[in-house]
Amino acid sequence: MPELRKDPIHGMWVIISAERSRRPSDFMPEERRAIGGFCPLCEGNEDRTPPEIIAFRGNGTPPNSPGWTLRVVPNKFPALRIEGQLAREGDGVYDKMNGIGAHEVVIETPQHSETLATLPPKAVENVLWAYRERMIDLRRDQRLRYVLVFKNHGIAAGASLEHSHSQIIALPIIPKRVSEEMEGSKNYFHYKDRCVFCDIIRQELQQRRRIINENRSFVSIAPFASRSPFETWILPKTHHPSFEHMESFDYEQAAQILSDTLQRMNQVLDNPPYNYVIHTSSFLEMDKEYYHWHFEIMPKLTKVAGFEWGTGFYINPTAPEEAAEYMREVR
Amino acid sequence: MPELRKDPIHGMWVIISAERSRRPSDFMPEERRAIGGFCPLCEGNEDRTPPEIIAFRGNGTPPNSPGWTLRVVPNKFPALRIEGQLAREGDGVYDKMNGIGAHEVVIETPQHSETLATLPPKAVENVLWAYRERMIDLRRDQRLRYVLVFKNHGIAAGASLEHSHSQIIALPIIPKRVSEEMEGSKNYFHYKDRCVFCDIIRQELQQRRRIINENRSFVSIAPFASRSPFETWILPKTHHPSFEHMESFDYEQAAQILSDTLQRMNQVLDNPPYNYVIHTSSFLEMDKEYYHWHFEIMPKLTKVAGFEWGTGFYINPTAPEEAAEYMREVR
Repeated sequence: MPELRKDPIHGMWVIISAERSRRPSDFMPEERRAIGGFCPLCEGNEDRTPPEIIAFRGNGTPPNSPGWTLRVVPNKFPALRIEGQLAREGDGVYDKMNGIGAHEVVIETPQHSETLATLPPKAVENVLWAYRERMIDLRRDQRLRYVLVFKNHGIAAGASLEHSHSQIIALPIIPKRVSEEMEGSKNYFHYKDRCVFCDIIRQELQQRRRIINENRSFVSIAPFASRSPFETWILPKTHHPSFEHMESFDYEQAAQILSDTLQRMNQVLDNPPYNYVIHTSSFLEMDKEYYHWHFEIMPKLTKVAGFEWGTGFYINPTAPEEAAEYMREVR
Repeated sequence: MPELRKDPIHGMWVIISAERSRRPSDFMPEERRAIGGFCPLCEGNEDRTPPEIIAFRGNGTPPNSPGWTLRVVPNKFPALRIEGQLAREGDGVYDKMNGIGAHEVVIETPQHSETLATLPPKAVENVLWAYRERMIDLRRDQRLRYVLVFKNHGIAAGASLEHSHSQIIALPIIPKRVSEEMEGSKNYFHYKDRCVFCDIIRQELQQRRRIINENRSFVSIAPFASRSPFETWILPKTHHPSFEHMESFDYEQAAQILSDTLQRMNQVLDNPPYNYVIHTSSFLEMDKEYYHWHFEIMPKLTKVAGFEWGTGFYINPTAPEEAAEYMREVR
């Protein structure tokens, strides 16, 4: 059983995932790790993944067989397990609990060579609908506090499979950066009676120096205090605390701007590896006036994560105003 | 002039370092970046670095000439500038100040092929004495709040030069992870009237499951909530808030355990790239009963920094108890 452990100084939780345990010799440089060959996520190989949780598939095709456009399956090597009790426990100065949670894989396309930047807008929209459906279902589990949707694209960004996919982790705790955001935006609201994200959007739309692109419902920006080159946020223009509680029309708009932003990134940075995460409200603070869901997209271009990991301190060699200009002008 | 910018949601400061600005085409994969060839840090090339700030050198040898064992020089491409005023300023919802500070390079040896793991203990001790001397000098600058000592070893850990060196950055703000540590340990002290680091050390020395090595003054451990495989902390056994205020004897002991720990890491993990940082007290909270200086060493073995960067959430596939056992038994 994986274990959740809390750092007694920072109060930060970490998953120690015993089932994924590796010996020192397994940490070889990623260049030597083979990618390619047999792909368990391709159409026709449905028996090589755990049985699907949901799928969007053609009429009449049975589950776990070909004929789908999107599948969500449990992760074969999950960082957390859904069965069991949390069993919160102390050991002297330390605190821990069982690694209860869910770890799922969203297979975004049956085609091995497609990516979110090449798929038609409707297929990208379906990915967002799948995120939403899984979020709403996982929230029913009383043991859990947060659903985290994220994507690792490319080996350098941590992907272990080439086939386009994202991951969903449901957790009994709230990830540190999300809880800091919720805390920070709550403080801002108490001080100003306004959502800090709404204030940021208003100022960015007025100054237009860090805007990348926009449509009716969304705007994409290079954030003022970007931590690394070409960091990009996509935000709903009007106040929406939770990803999973938007109008139907907004998922179409979200898919359009996500696809456009990734295409720009590919053109400017020559198909970089990247990560994205969706930051949405936590289960205990749903639909509050102070929080505002958004995408954070981070192309993986620099190599200084270790230092930043030890300090929480970022040195960014590219001004976001410059990055936004490159991204704006490319299409 | 580089700029310090504050994220209005998290309150986190970032350096936007215009002088280091790069175009999109400069972000090529690091494998293609050449290392080797001419080395500006080698003995005999003293004219290829800015003039030395301090040096440990043979009697009678003039500054910026051969005959040294260690040099500290300003970084040729500094992330911060020492000249100017902080000029704190707002722009709507955003806050910024000038990128005032110091950025120095500690050249740890005249020999290109040596590392901290191969140098004799006395040479490693000299590196620590150099850190101390620069910390004490930089603290005199009233504009600054923190001196950060760190090391990037190996390209994958962010090093741009192969020759063994570390860096010193003096800042007008306190790095996030350090200020969180100071806050967390202050809260713990208020609750328990004990230093949380002292409590951790007491429990680890008793349980002995995560101890790597120890000497008279220091202990090295795999922390309970390790964020990634083989994360290692070196802590003084008795309460010492600040690195720069130890007894002479303790620098010798610190050099011994640092050298031993790096040698173990090289043996277990086959000379991995790594980062280390020194966490010491901030200028405004020197020598408090609640803070305890330490090294954090992080071999760079996994590739998931981007995701963790977006969430502050870590999944570690190697239990620290296992890592400590490998590190203990290797010698």
